[in-house]
Amino acid sequence: MAILGFGTVGSAVARRLSGPDAIHGLELTHIFDRRAAEKHTRLGHHRDGRGFIADVAWTGQFEDIVTSDADVVVELVGGVEPAAGWIRELLAAGKSVVTANKQVIARHGPDLLRFAARQGRQLRFEAAVGGAMPIVRAVGEGLAGDRITRIVAVLNGTTNAVLSRMESTGCAMADALADARARGYAEADASADLDGLDAAAKLSILCGLAFGLRVDPSEIETCSSASIGPGDVAQAHRQGGALRQIAHAEYHQALAALTAWVAPVIVPRASIFGRATGPQNAALVTSTYSGEIGMSGAGAGGDATAVAILSDLGAIAKDRSAVVPPPAWSRPSVILGRPPSGRERGREECRGHLADEGQVSGAVLAEAV
Amino acid sequence: MAILGFGTVGSAVARRLSGPDAIHGLELTHIFDRRAAEKHTRLGHHRDGRGFIADVAWTGQFEDIVTSDADVVVELVGGVEPAAGWIRELLAAGKSVVTANKQVIARHGPDLLRFAARQGRQLRFEAAVGGAMPIVRAVGEGLAGDRITRIVAVLNGTTNAVLSRMESTGCAMADALADARARGYAEADASADLDGLDAAAKLSILCGLAFGLRVDPSEIETCSSASIGPGDVAQAHRQGGALRQIAHAEYHQALAALTAWVAPVIVPRASIFGRATGPQNAALVTSTYSGEIGMSGAGAGGDATAVAILSDLGAIAKDRSAVVPPPAWSRPSVILGRPPSGRERGREECRGHLADEGQVSGAVLAEAV
Repeated sequence: MAILGFGTVGSAVARRLSGPDAIHGLELTHIFDRRAAEKHTRLGHHRDGRGFIADVAWTGQFEDIVTSDADVVVELVGGVEPAAGWIRELLAAGKSVVTANKQVIARHGPDLLRFAARQGRQLRFEAAVGGAMPIVRAVGEGLAGDRITRIVAVLNGTTNAVLSRMESTGCAMADALADARARGYAEADASADLDGLDAAAKLSILCGLAFGLRVDPSEIETCSSASIGPGDVAQAHRQGGALRQIAHAEYHQALAALTAWVAPVIVPRASIFGRATGPQNAALVTSTYSGEIGMSGAGAGGDATAVAILSDLGAIAKDRSAVVPPPAWSRPSVILGRPPSGRERGREECRGHLADEGQVSGAVLAEAV
Repeated sequence: MAILGFGTVGSAVARRLSGPDAIHGLELTHIFDRRAAEKHTRLGHHRDGRGFIADVAWTGQFEDIVTSDADVVVELVGGVEPAAGWIRELLAAGKSVVTANKQVIARHGPDLLRFAARQGRQLRFEAAVGGAMPIVRAVGEGLAGDRITRIVAVLNGTTNAVLSRMESTGCAMADALADARARGYAEADASADLDGLDAAAKLSILCGLAFGLRVDPSEIETCSSASIGPGDVAQAHRQGGALRQIAHAEYHQALAALTAWVAPVIVPRASIFGRATGPQNAALVTSTYSGEIGMSGAGAGGDATAVAILSDLGAIAKDRSAVVPPPAWSRPSVILGRPPSGRERGREECRGHLADEGQVSGAVLAEAV
């Protein structure tokens, strides 16, 4: 097997696979690292400086991975391109792929999953949503026997670490961000996290798994958390609440109407969301027959993401010819944003209250094509 | 496909499979019902009285199911025998089996799973633990990429419904039990629920999935909740807590020492356990790399259990030749019960406090063979 991308998550995966948690039947043979050309002899076999990888071929050339004998590849380069094209090339070359890339799965998931099924290969992406919280399996398989009607969730660990840090210390967002960066929960540029774009991509993936809907992340209304100040946090606290970046999706099947948005919201402090602190994720999934299922867990960090990747790798190692049927997702007839009533309460337009989460009415964001 | 047993869960499964939630590639053709001999012509095709099953062969003879052309069977007769023997016969006949039978899986799971693997068939049991809460998948697959060290959970929906009813109304246990029966959360005889035997069977299954350990339910220390009175509930409430039947398992890998017990415990009211009311289940799973994963959801009731069964049926329909490797579970070197310090606090020996849950020390319950 091979790893594409050797950042925080890639090195965490390599370290675990090279230690006592090695997966039977999967040997790490190749690592693609953009910096490999400088750091290592191309395709040279040698001991890595950090000492945990015994014998692996390093390369800075993607083609070396495509033509290698690795039959399973972990994609961790991030971003939409070239990652999406690379995943397709790997599947075309007969390899199964495990990815943590929410942007690729949100935008090209249905196409890539159909292509993987046609190739008789697997494309697994538990790590793309929820970190170590196994929500992809819970929604896609565990609740497959129900009809899911709503998902409300905290899906961005970075924003959650920042907001809960502001809450516990009273500090400004810049200080909370610096702290999150120091702890490895935030990248240098956290705007995609704070603006809700990261959570929107994850929510779009969940809309596919839960409702069978093809939704582009750009169709999901987002409201940034970037301008939240200590005063907002304190005010939420005085109301018995806490500010959280909430991702909300609700599907009215008879009308084929999807309501989907990401926004900072005041939630009850004792709720599953209020109690999610640091880089945690949390989700409430409502279904017709089983009511509400709650989940919470570490949503960011190399180790937590590596857990989801190793679980996917283990599933492939167990059954390399597992049948993963292609998704037959449809388009909603309409995609709605946040109900206006939810917007009136807070200090600004987009700081409302979760009490209105159940409403389907609201501003029309995008008419389905 | 066939259903063995036509009680609350069996009829819920049949109703959903015969309605809009039918699973592509799975047609319900046979129902085994002990009362079928009286109620129906043996193997006669006819409309069921309740009108939701169009055309199915009813029988009171197990042999009719074994010799039928059904290739997937849902086992819902309950109890250890004849259920365990029947599951083996069905696997031997080349059928895959979905079961909600925690007693069979807890006692004969490893043998039956090995036999299923040898037969190239599947034995799935999501419904045996946690109701609609997909904890079997979460622990067995979603966290397969981690090393689970501890599971603390509310696993018995009946006891939880009774204890939380006593809490909200101040009533006696007999009244809470009558209420639970009226709502379909408790059987006529709830002693296996209150005494912790049901939760111990489920905990034994989770010990297999989480720690790779073969543990008989009888080796798990149980302390009954049956004698809890309104005074105990009120006292817990005054302490800011709530009484819950907690199932606890913790594995110290280096020592191969398992601590496992089921007992009523005072938990913080704001905790995931305190907030589990009615027939809900909840679990906190602690792992080396991802920390704590929380889950909660409906743990009892025909509809919730049917969700787990339909999810398993869907997985089989998707991939009838899926490879499910046989478990390679080992025996712990020692099985410990509840730490003594945990027992000193409450009014009686077995009403302690969750604060001590982390200790491995405690009474030796059973030396491993």
